[in-house]
Amino acid sequence: MSFANHLENVTIQPKISASQAIPPVAVPFVSEKAKKHLDLVERWVNEECIPADTVYASQLNTTTNRWTGHPSVLDHMKKRAKELGIWNMFLPKNHFANEGSPGFTNLEYGLMAEQLGKSRIASEACNCAAPDTGNMEVIARYGTRAQKDQWLKPLLAGEIRSGFLMTEPDVASSDGSNIQLRIEKKSDHWLLNGSKWWSSGAGDDRCKIFIVMGKTDPNNSNKFLQQSMLLVPAETKGITVHRMLSVYGYDDAPHGHGHISFKDVKVPLDSILVGEGKGNEIMQGRLGPGRIHHAMRSIGAAEVALEWMIHRLNDERKTPFGKPLREHGVLIEWVAKSRMEIDASRLVVLNAAIKIDQKDAKFALREIAEAKVLVPQMALTVIDRAVQVHGAMGIRTLRIADGPDEAHLQQLGKRENKERKDEIIAKFARQTQTAEKLFKQMGLTPYLLGAEKFRSKL
Amino acid sequence: MSFANHLENVTIQPKISASQAIPPVAVPFVSEKAKKHLDLVERWVNEECIPADTVYASQLNTTTNRWTGHPSVLDHMKKRAKELGIWNMFLPKNHFANEGSPGFTNLEYGLMAEQLGKSRIASEACNCAAPDTGNMEVIARYGTRAQKDQWLKPLLAGEIRSGFLMTEPDVASSDGSNIQLRIEKKSDHWLLNGSKWWSSGAGDDRCKIFIVMGKTDPNNSNKFLQQSMLLVPAETKGITVHRMLSVYGYDDAPHGHGHISFKDVKVPLDSILVGEGKGNEIMQGRLGPGRIHHAMRSIGAAEVALEWMIHRLNDERKTPFGKPLREHGVLIEWVAKSRMEIDASRLVVLNAAIKIDQKDAKFALREIAEAKVLVPQMALTVIDRAVQVHGAMGIRTLRIADGPDEAHLQQLGKRENKERKDEIIAKFARQTQTAEKLFKQMGLTPYLLGAEKFRSKL
Amino acid sequence: MSFANHLENVTIQPKISASQAIPPVAVPFVSEKAKKHLDLVERWVNEECIPADTVYASQLNTTTNRWTGHPSVLDHMKKRAKELGIWNMFLPKNHFANEGSPGFTNLEYGLMAEQLGKSRIASEACNCAAPDTGNMEVIARYGTRAQKDQWLKPLLAGEIRSGFLMTEPDVASSDGSNIQLRIEKKSDHWLLNGSKWWSSGAGDDRCKIFIVMGKTDPNNSNKFLQQSMLLVPAETKGITVHRMLSVYGYDDAPHGHGHISFKDVKVPLDSILVGEGKGNEIMQGRLGPGRIHHAMRSIGAAEVALEWMIHRLNDERKTPFGKPLREHGVLIEWVAKSRMEIDASRLVVLNAAIKIDQKDAKFALREIAEAKVLVPQMALTVIDRAVQVHGAMGIRTLRIADGPDEAHLQQLGKRENKERKDEIIAKFARQTQTAEKLFKQMGLTPYLLGAEKFRSKL
Amino acid sequence: MSFANHLENVTIQPKISASQAIPPVAVPFVSEKAKKHLDLVERWVNEECIPADTVYASQLNTTTNRWTGHPSVLDHMKKRAKELGIWNMFLPKNHFANEGSPGFTNLEYGLMAEQLGKSRIASEACNCAAPDTGNMEVIARYGTRAQKDQWLKPLLAGEIRSGFLMTEPDVASSDGSNIQLRIEKKSDHWLLNGSKWWSSGAGDDRCKIFIVMGKTDPNNSNKFLQQSMLLVPAETKGITVHRMLSVYGYDDAPHGHGHISFKDVKVPLDSILVGEGKGNEIMQGRLGPGRIHHAMRSIGAAEVALEWMIHRLNDERKTPFGKPLREHGVLIEWVAKSRMEIDASRLVVLNAAIKIDQKDAKFALREIAEAKVLVPQMALTVIDRAVQVHGAMGIRTLRIADGPDEAHLQQLGKRENKERKDEIIAKFARQTQTAEKLFKQMGLTPYLLGAEKFRSKL
Repeated sequence: MSFANHLENVTIQPKISASQAIPPVAVPFVSEKAKKHLDLVERWVNEECIPADTVYASQLNTTTNRWTGHPSVLDHMKKRAKELGIWNMFLPKNHFANEGSPGFTNLEYGLMAEQLGKSRIASEACNCAAPDTGNMEVIARYGTRAQKDQWLKPLLAGEIRSGFLMTEPDVASSDGSNIQLRIEKKSDHWLLNGSKWWSSGAGDDRCKIFIVMGKTDPNNSNKFLQQSMLLVPAETKGITVHRMLSVYGYDDAPHGHGHISFKDVKVPLDSILVGEGKGNEIMQGRLGPGRIHHAMRSIGAAEVALEWMIHRLNDERKTPFGKPLREHGVLIEWVAKSRMEIDASRLVVLNAAIKIDQKDAKFALREIAEAKVLVPQMALTVIDRAVQVHGAMGIRTLRIADGPDEAHLQQLGKRENKERKDEIIAKFARQTQTAEKLFKQMGLTPYLLGAEKFRSKL
Repeated sequence: MSFANHLENVTIQPKISASQAIPPVAVPFVSEKAKKHLDLVERWVNEECIPADTVYASQLNTTTNRWTGHPSVLDHMKKRAKELGIWNMFLPKNHFANEGSPGFTNLEYGLMAEQLGKSRIASEACNCAAPDTGNMEVIARYGTRAQKDQWLKPLLAGEIRSGFLMTEPDVASSDGSNIQLRIEKKSDHWLLNGSKWWSSGAGDDRCKIFIVMGKTDPNNSNKFLQQSMLLVPAETKGITVHRMLSVYGYDDAPHGHGHISFKDVKVPLDSILVGEGKGNEIMQGRLGPGRIHHAMRSIGAAEVALEWMIHRLNDERKTPFGKPLREHGVLIEWVAKSRMEIDASRLVVLNAAIKIDQKDAKFALREIAEAKVLVPQMALTVIDRAVQVHGAMGIRTLRIADGPDEAHLQQLGKRENKERKDEIIAKFARQTQTAEKLFKQMGLTPYLLGAEKFRSKL
Repeated sequence: MSFANHLENVTIQPKISASQAIPPVAVPFVSEKAKKHLDLVERWVNEECIPADTVYASQLNTTTNRWTGHPSVLDHMKKRAKELGIWNMFLPKNHFANEGSPGFTNLEYGLMAEQLGKSRIASEACNCAAPDTGNMEVIARYGTRAQKDQWLKPLLAGEIRSGFLMTEPDVASSDGSNIQLRIEKKSDHWLLNGSKWWSSGAGDDRCKIFIVMGKTDPNNSNKFLQQSMLLVPAETKGITVHRMLSVYGYDDAPHGHGHISFKDVKVPLDSILVGEGKGNEIMQGRLGPGRIHHAMRSIGAAEVALEWMIHRLNDERKTPFGKPLREHGVLIEWVAKSRMEIDASRLVVLNAAIKIDQKDAKFALREIAEAKVLVPQMALTVIDRAVQVHGAMGIRTLRIADGPDEAHLQQLGKRENKERKDEIIAKFARQTQTAEKLFKQMGLTPYLLGAEKFRSKL
Repeated sequence: MSFANHLENVTIQPKISASQAIPPVAVPFVSEKAKKHLDLVERWVNEECIPADTVYASQLNTTTNRWTGHPSVLDHMKKRAKELGIWNMFLPKNHFANEGSPGFTNLEYGLMAEQLGKSRIASEACNCAAPDTGNMEVIARYGTRAQKDQWLKPLLAGEIRSGFLMTEPDVASSDGSNIQLRIEKKSDHWLLNGSKWWSSGAGDDRCKIFIVMGKTDPNNSNKFLQQSMLLVPAETKGITVHRMLSVYGYDDAPHGHGHISFKDVKVPLDSILVGEGKGNEIMQGRLGPGRIHHAMRSIGAAEVALEWMIHRLNDERKTPFGKPLREHGVLIEWVAKSRMEIDASRLVVLNAAIKIDQKDAKFALREIAEAKVLVPQMALTVIDRAVQVHGAMGIRTLRIADGPDEAHLQQLGKRENKERKDEIIAKFARQTQTAEKLFKQMGLTPYLLGAEKFRSKL
């Protein structure tokens, strides 16, 4: 696919490294240690992860069972990441100094997450993939020593994976208080009944532990105190994974998004996180930093899309209407807008990250919400432009089949201009002449606003 | 302002006349008589009204009192329109055969209104200007013989003008049931108290009659039966015009949009239209056709904006970045989108007009609402593009000062492309090489989706 | 997934049939015969095809080879369609009266295509699927008797399928003159070398014939005369299908979009369509009606999306923030905009179809281009809204994970309003008071524009 | 206009002062001194300038000559600003320590400019209005001692005003190299011939000095060396101000945007800035900081628009469709989007300002261009929403007359939902039943993706 086979000796690294490209306004918030690590991550993503993405895709397409066969290249890459010390960067230093935090702030990890977002496998390869990151934060912050030993340790080591089960099929679960899964307290166990879906990661055989949100006190007048969270081993009796949901044609195997039911599922009383009624509070704390991570990864994805756009604009074989793509003004405008929108979004996310670092996610509600809404819209827009630039190669059937919109618009516009210009120019000229005659005929002089203003006096 | 002084002999008329340009799908609905009249209107607008617009603007700017001095060119044009038989086209034939209808349907007049919309003064010059058109329809349909003799006759003759007073300052009057002006029935008169604003035309000295909407039965449990409409002479005692509101810096003199108060205003009992509680019903009937007229006039305005855009694109003196404007792909795309959006909007309005013609406005609620919302948005978009194309000449300060957005975007995009292309091309090439090595190293063969498909067999 | 199990006795048919819902402006162009057939197609799609879609998807997911196993439900449905006389409706009567045209115009078939577009399998089930439709038109119009006997007959009977090979991997083929596949004339055969991709249908084993566009006269100074079209049996020696391209994660099996190479492929001299240099002309003629079909099918898809949106809005279990979805103003606005945009697009396409019917596709270039650009953008927008309304169920990961944008925006907006309203109201009040004091202090009286206007005189 | 007359005792100051509201990411760049001054400016704008705006508008409307009578309230306010020490804040400390800089960086002044942008007169009242600011920077940086004494001193004192004459009527002057005004070097003077327009401030009698850009060396092969800049007294013989251009109906009196001609205008040789051929270089340096100022003022204007929006949403008298405006989801979404877009834009501008402060404008080309394009689009969008929320009061005729778009869309959407929901729910239910039957009839079992996944094992 490349048309650059002659560029043998060009280095793969950008002229300006990631740490040099930090927006000036954010520079004071990044330590020298973090800058160094950021550049290491960038190099690793560019030089190792993105090439490995191709291998991953190929392995996934040839496996006989997409849901059980794990592409071996991922283990290869995890080993390599550990060697390089690129591991668990998401654990922020102000909260998890004693839990294995590598010592970065949310802002600093955010900058690294942008790099990870450029590759399909990088996040998982360095144990920084959702939903494990959020789950590890939850257990690290709210878990008992025993819970940490049992689940946090293997998660931090990348030996198992986890699920976070909140969304439910039959309610508007974007409003958390609607959650219906019932958790009853019995003499020596919790009894769970209900169902969940969009349970990300539930398709993965290595997913061993679910954090489950449900209602322990459905009649509490304070709807924010009705929920609790439990640690539930994924293979507990009574749990059935019915199917994997697909997203726009992607099943996201072997990770998957499961539809899961709980029928009389029993777990010990010490499976609860913190205590009864704390579900909502834990969830609020969990979401903030995760949104920063997601947002920065999406920004990384948008940067890659912009790179593909530029790559394509300089493909000398593509010369619609006789000139290379980079001389088509519409496409250059797309590059500019993408550059602008990515840069603006990044500043919004970094500003939110700093506010979380200064105190916590609750303190930064407005900033996090802005990042949450702004970044995905930006990313979709930028990626959409990149796809459209690639025409058939990155096809969006409807808008490209039979020629891209842009080609049709150019022809439509040129035709309109060609057919009508003489007529319009002549008409306007004549109308001006007629107006002049009318002024004369009515004995009037044309007046210009402010014409009584000063004339030169010196 | 013209650069076409050499085009002495070019005719002012378009190659394709308005009747020839009717969208094919609408052609079966337009009579031969209407086609002929449509072309007459088009020619009159192009050859006489648009030139006269310049005179009108100049007269208005030099008058000592914008609110009392009426530019004489308008009377000149009204006389001319009567001579040509271009007068009162809005009165639809299926309702007003006996009230002076020139015999056109709403669809047919709609096509003419598009032409009228191209000139500032054309609608008034042929007695087809709002709010008179809607008011005349109301009196023609709902008025008594005496009411018609007193007010409809001079309105149809263009001797006086009228106001329609519905909107009020202190309520959300887009929901008609919120209207507050109180109309009390006394032994021998109606007593009015309250205030109105955005009373269009109230600034004009020739405005002699107001149609006033108010509440005669504020406690009626059916909120649609609380309102009535009265005919109130503009100079009745107790009416005060406080000021003229300005719209985005335009005061719209001498027409004006007035803020008016009613204090113990008395009118005879026979001033009511139809009867008590009929206000809402009359209003519903009044709005439908008026929306078609407005929409088609806006389409005419958008067509003129597109003409200005094309005119500008072919100004040979304007060659930013070394090529004429018409070779800037972004601008050609604007022409194409404008062409497309205008054409789509017109079809929506014509389809709505046909539905009104087939029965009445109530029957076409959905279609009218679609036209009402779609057309102004389209017109604003097209006009905005035209303004942007004109740069400083048709300035929108914010987006043009210090160079138009488009120039900045082109530079930003070109710089981004220039600075990064070599690096990106090289990087992608290297990443591909690395992936190839990784496949080898892991003993894997790249797999292509569907690669097992048939090979040639013959 | 349905929440309407109690609605046992409700008919599946809409209150207003498809023929009754034809936009008023288009009614004069639809014959009684076409109206009847349109309603038949609508009923068949609703009652039989859409249910069968589910079966089709299930069969496809369970087949061991997606590229060779054809879901049997499709043959079941084809048989049924033939029984009902729903077959080959695309062949327009003004060109193919003698080739099996069922006697409909492009406009009439367009209305039927809208219905077909509501189901995944309907078009193929009644032999109206691309690329066969366009290919059949080409052979019917340009083929010799022998070519028709060999290929058109089995295509019209639905026994084989076909491919149209135009797009190429290495050039900007949206500009047809860039096409590179070489066709050399030898003594007794044509020799083909080159490659094609996005060859739709090439994955299907039943695809037996390719129409191939290539260059027979690459040096002709008129670039529109360089191309010719050949009929090439799909299994000819030297043809290799390398892989199936995937579109946003969909491989579109078993139809497929193939990447195909031609290496010294030989076909007899009588395989050419019309003659040398006619390739471009044939292509132009082929594209027009096809664009109408595509556009109307997309409109059907958008109508289904709107139906899903309405379906979801009335799911009583979904009550985010305490009220059903249909009481969320933003979502109701989406329904309204979708209704409006679909209706506008349909008028544009029908208007273009009429122009083709009146003469041919060349006569309707502008109208076709408008439809081509407008409809896909509309469809993507409407479908995107429908997906967003469905939240997790029809997920767009980025904009919905962690709660949909709309929920965040509502919270963000409410917080902003709550936190700032008292302060702002107070501030504005104080500023007004200060201004009043300043007027007094400076001895000035506030002036209102137009305040000198007339006072009541009677 | 206020509905808050009862709020007598509420303070006018926001709960969070401007210095406390600085985005966290920018805080390290703002000195304590600047924070204090920022809060002073904010208080002055809110408590004194915005009330004085009303007086200014009233004085302007009652003056007999808008172009010569200067509202006296402005002098009143200038005096007050000097007393408070709010004066000339724009002069950045790293360049103008010896020229009267009050010691702020571009970033710090930018934050103050946002406050100034909330009032019509604040910028001029503290001598921080364009084009004087840019002109003063130019003379301070590039002027000789004599030039500074003659022109910079009275400008810094606010005694005179100035013009910057670059844009020309007949060329695309967004590309500076197109400028045509001819400057010829004669033995003892420069001779100027040509014309300029959009010369902001040229209408003001107090405007005493023009900085004029023109071509001294039109044949220089380096097009960036053809231009020079001269200091030309405004009343020099040969200069004629023909008229004031109006912007969307606003003439911007008494400031004005003039159309000016130069006919054989002579100025001494020492009027040149720096030297021949330096025009382009000076212009580049001048534009950068000015763009930051403009952008921050526009952000201030957008913040005021948002305040008006919130103010309106809480007007209890406005209850369309039976609920207050703040409970209309669409409007709350507008508040949220406005909040988000303003915040994002501000970060972009502040980041650019920091880059200028770190080195100079040339170093920050990309960031400045992003701010230049992004902010005006944001401001127009936010202001447009505010206008739309105000309905008739802040009218945009087309989209509000006959009821705002939003009202129509709500009705259209509700009607669509009401009329179709039962039918659609029933249809979907039936289609599901039919599919179930078809599965049975064909002996098939519905398959769910991933249904083979693990069942509970413990």
